[in-house]
Amino acid sequence: MSLDFQHHMLVRQEHLNQYGSLFGGAVLAMIDELAFIACTRTYPGRNFLTRAVLDAEFRAPAYLGDMLEFNFGIEHTGKTSAHVRVEMLIHEAEGGKPVRSFDGTVVMVCVDAHGEPTRVHG
Amino acid sequence: MSLDFQHHMLVRQEHLNQYGSLFGGAVLAMIDELAFIACTRTYPGRNFLTRAVLDAEFRAPAYLGDMLEFNFGIEHTGKTSAHVRVEMLIHEAEGGKPVRSFDGTVVMVCVDAHGEPTRVHG
Amino acid sequence: MSLDFQHHMLVRQEHLNQYGSLFGGAVLAMIDELAFIACTRTYPGRNFLTRAVLDAEFRAPAYLGDMLEFNFGIEHTGKTSAHVRVEMLIHEAEGGKPVRSFDGTVVMVCVDAHGEPTRVHG
Amino acid sequence: MSLDFQHHMLVRQEHLNQYGSLFGGAVLAMIDELAFIACTRTYPGRNFLTRAVLDAEFRAPAYLGDMLEFNFGIEHTGKTSAHVRVEMLIHEAEGGKPVRSFDGTVVMVCVDAHGEPTRVHG
Amino acid sequence: MSLDFQHHMLVRQEHLNQYGSLFGGAVLAMIDELAFIACTRTYPGRNFLTRAVLDAEFRAPAYLGDMLEFNFGIEHTGKTSAHVRVEMLIHEAEGGKPVRSFDGTVVMVCVDAHGEPTRVHG
Amino acid sequence: MSLDFQHHMLVRQEHLNQYGSLFGGAVLAMIDELAFIACTRTYPGRNFLTRAVLDAEFRAPAYLGDMLEFNFGIEHTGKTSAHVRVEMLIHEAEGGKPVRSFDGTVVMVCVDAHGEPTRVHG
Repeated sequence: MSLDFQHHMLVRQEHLNQYGSLFGGAVLAMIDELAFIACTRTYPGRNFLTRAVLDAEFRAPAYLGDMLEFNFGIEHTGKTSAHVRVEMLIHEAEGGKPVRSFDGTVVMVCVDAHGEPTRVHG
Repeated sequence: MSLDFQHHMLVRQEHLNQYGSLFGGAVLAMIDELAFIACTRTYPGRNFLTRAVLDAEFRAPAYLGDMLEFNFGIEHTGKTSAHVRVEMLIHEAEGGKPVRSFDGTVVMVCVDAHGEPTRVHG
Repeated sequence: MSLDFQHHMLVRQEHLNQYGSLFGGAVLAMIDELAFIACTRTYPGRNFLTRAVLDAEFRAPAYLGDMLEFNFGIEHTGKTSAHVRVEMLIHEAEGGKPVRSFDGTVVMVCVDAHGEPTRVHG
Repeated sequence: MSLDFQHHMLVRQEHLNQYGSLFGGAVLAMIDELAFIACTRTYPGRNFLTRAVLDAEFRAPAYLGDMLEFNFGIEHTGKTSAHVRVEMLIHEAEGGKPVRSFDGTVVMVCVDAHGEPTRVHG
Repeated sequence: MSLDFQHHMLVRQEHLNQYGSLFGGAVLAMIDELAFIACTRTYPGRNFLTRAVLDAEFRAPAYLGDMLEFNFGIEHTGKTSAHVRVEMLIHEAEGGKPVRSFDGTVVMVCVDAHGEPTRVHG
Repeated sequence: MSLDFQHHMLVRQEHLNQYGSLFGGAVLAMIDELAFIACTRTYPGRNFLTRAVLDAEFRAPAYLGDMLEFNFGIEHTGKTSAHVRVEMLIHEAEGGKPVRSFDGTVVMVCVDAHGEPTRVHG
């Protein structure tokens, strides 16, 4: 497994709940997009749909102005699916050691033009 | 368990990938918001953070113009956390029998003003 | 008349004006989507466009963290149009009795492929 | 009455329903923001909340790539409220005569720090 | 040169960084849309792509509740391109003299159906 | 100069104009956020505002489903400002050699609590 890709996101007002911490949903939407990118970059010309989310855990909350660093990549490729691992670190605007905030795995299934599962390695 | 709450969403252009099917991320962002609402409606005055996503499975893809119906509610309440079950049906614009498209469970943890876990039933 | 459908929305930072209260526009955009859903769910295979907004009144302001509950449904169906009634309640995060915040009626016209009005009951 | 202010908006993919025409909700959200701007520009230092929408009528549908031109301004000022008139024209990307698409009036109420109605002319 | 068009925007929570001032990106996204509108309104039936941003300078920061007034128009038209000038003023909610906040020029290139540059005046 | 940071973005329906190509504004909004992240990650505890955009050129259009790869980093640091270089590549979903699509420089100014320029290296 290697987390080949990197992504950044700034925590803005629109990502916060009324207590001032990051909504989990903002992260969940992002990991789905990253999983799609990892699969398509690794297997160009293939179409992938989200199949499941595994082991998604939020370990530390993020706040306004925090910079999120995502590291992600293909963890495992099966016959008709791929597992994408996503790990997220928080870098606070004030500096200091980054904190592990979230990790999880997105299972993407490779589908043909009719939406039916098909081999990743055609 | 009872899925006491209902929610609706229309699949729009902005929710689609380039093959015309709904991004999983749009659903994942939504279930997080619904889980937050279910917990706060059930336990007013309590603050909840997303802790994990369990058993999230996408069973059938949705397309432009489909109407998504979410049914959700508290599945189980522990000492410092609550499990929210979310099930999603697709109603096609053309009519016909609704299709089960997604289900999963969001684990929300009840936190105090310092972000530390605290009892749901104070 | 029966308000058959229910919808939820959490008031987030992005919905607020600089005085901290909910923009009316966020509600107006939502009721249009709900009116579309009510018509299409009730009359599958029909295409509807927004024709007018009637009696839309904001009765009490909402604030950050409030949970909005929409109840909506077909109020009346004419030859080529349908009236959708939408009522909105505020549930405060702190609990307490819900407050009636908004109600109004959206007139949707049923149109054919050329955008011309056509009979709802074909 | 004079429609002193002008505003533009391009119809993009995200504003369309599955039949390719503009959602009314996109217009309704916009007129609320414009009403707020008209009141605050005309009566600086005053806080306004949306009170009602009057006579909002959609007269012609807009499509992808159309350019919307809004003309808006204070129509009437009462003791504690102001009526903002908004008219919307469609300019098609291909050119041709602009088409009247929407008009309506937003009633804004002037409120004090407690959200209570107060005189516009203090 | 004449800045024929006017546009308005209210600074909302979602446009702010963690220090409470407007993100430049919100302005940059807006001037691109305005440049597209200015070109298409002036040369209907022509397709334009963004080619470059020139002399874009942020002169004074904007804050929550400020009302942004954009004045924009075609500055110069070349053989296959057009320069759109955009100037932005801040009107504070409290009133007072408007402040010049941003100005810049967007170069738009006129393209044919294959994305190749073509004459503006066909 | 080194472009230390990497970022990804998928071109979705909401980023397209009516001819199906990516709006420049979506890229411009993104480079501003990336410039902010580059400065804050490199100089933690400092506040930066966008001052200008230099040499921003769009070299090749992107389309639906393209994956954008941004490489960015501090190009130069002055007394009270930093120049952030951003380069963008297109990876098509079908595969093939990536294409240089955009590059430019964002000038960020380091400001104190009053919004006045201050030394980057305090």
